[in-house]
Amino acid sequence: MSQGAAFAELDIRLDRTSSVPLYHQLATSIEQAITSGELAPGDRLENELSLTNRLGLSRPTARQAIQELVKKGLLVRKRGVGTQVVRSQFRRDERLSSLNEDLAKAGRVPSTRLLDFTVGPLADDVRDALDATGVTEGDFVTIRRLRLADDVPLAILTNYLPARFEIARSDVEDGLSLYGHLATLGVNLKIAHQRISARLMDDEEAGLLDSTPPAACLTVERTAYDDVGQFVELGRHVYQAAHYSIQSSLVV
Amino acid sequence: MSQGAAFAELDIRLDRTSSVPLYHQLATSIEQAITSGELAPGDRLENELSLTNRLGLSRPTARQAIQELVKKGLLVRKRGVGTQVVRSQFRRDERLSSLNEDLAKAGRVPSTRLLDFTVGPLADDVRDALDATGVTEGDFVTIRRLRLADDVPLAILTNYLPARFEIARSDVEDGLSLYGHLATLGVNLKIAHQRISARLMDDEEAGLLDSTPPAACLTVERTAYDDVGQFVELGRHVYQAAHYSIQSSLVV
Repeated sequence: MSQGAAFAELDIRLDRTSSVPLYHQLATSIEQAITSGELAPGDRLENELSLTNRLGLSRPTARQAIQELVKKGLLVRKRGVGTQVVRSQFRRDERLSSLNEDLAKAGRVPSTRLLDFTVGPLADDVRDALDATGVTEGDFVTIRRLRLADDVPLAILTNYLPARFEIARSDVEDGLSLYGHLATLGVNLKIAHQRISARLMDDEEAGLLDSTPPAACLTVERTAYDDVGQFVELGRHVYQAAHYSIQSSLVV
Repeated sequence: MSQGAAFAELDIRLDRTSSVPLYHQLATSIEQAITSGELAPGDRLENELSLTNRLGLSRPTARQAIQELVKKGLLVRKRGVGTQVVRSQFRRDERLSSLNEDLAKAGRVPSTRLLDFTVGPLADDVRDALDATGVTEGDFVTIRRLRLADDVPLAILTNYLPARFEIARSDVEDGLSLYGHLATLGVNLKIAHQRISARLMDDEEAGLLDSTPPAACLTVERTAYDDVGQFVELGRHVYQAAHYSIQSSLVV
């Protein structure tokens, strides 16, 4: 590793007589450096131009190698920073809990940016999602927050709650827990039904989650009820998949 | 809807005096046709060229509208077919069960293509994933299968099992259930630890899953043990996110 450069210069050996494509040899070398710990999470990768010049490769070859590792989830491209080794994923237990509190327990520093706080009738697609609950009329509070862990954007959380719950903008600003506030109102969450899937981030989401499109996100749609069976909230959560996974144990 | 065309010609009205961009007006019209059922899951969307000519739009405008709905997960581009309304997702309960059996129960017709069946030592990345199990030495059976539902590719399932289990290629061909075969060997799965995340498909995965890159997949890594606490298998599953979601209920 060169200390002078802002990135590590890996010892990469390419075999030009091999039938293995050069981009794949390069990708394998970088992957080994990550696996061995020579490149640690958060480390910057030598940039394309430097790899190209130093190893006598074409630019598309270097790019293809990096792209392969981005797809594998080992590297991540960041605007204004370059290509970095991904930080290890935050592995979160599948529970009905506050992301904020779960992050703090895991030794991460959570922070929040309130993106939207509005009160009004539901948009059609949200109304459709709530059809099964029977609670679609009247005003709803829509809260949209960006949640960060150690200053890295992790999730965009959108919650829809009937406006009869007393929630003010100040109750969910500055990383305050929505579930915590509901508890102070005497609302105790009891059960949630959730659906987990994935899709591509749209451009706005990618911007908020500090990702260069195309990028994949993990999506969770959750409908939560309190201990007297009353509908409390619909949550639509978009997680930066490179940094987040859900873990659970299944018993037969 | 015109019966002559291979796709529906929607009644789309654009307001050129509006400050709403034309691409967004077009996307909204198409989305309403999907929401209302005018366009049903599996229906082909009128192609870009036809939209362009019929509505007097530029090609980039039509493309941007379609792209917006692809990102929202409402449309899917398919090689050789065009743009289709996505079929509704297969919502699978989070249980330790056979995908084959779950599909059949849901009224889908499951089928399988065996992609790989090999016996040998583990690759480094698989060995790392199995570190916690203490079972990494000796030969392993690697089984890689493409699973389809109603002839639509749904998942690429890769399983790694110690070779001491008697598993032959013929035991997992033709849609036979791996878990079913294990049961005939007296191996009863009891508990699994799993981790759910998402990433972009690589080109090979996109090809197998009939998707045009960039496309997102839902990933599940599962380590399963039997009723005497013995390690049975590591599963690495890649699901076509447009067609698949995992549902569960959480209780406080």
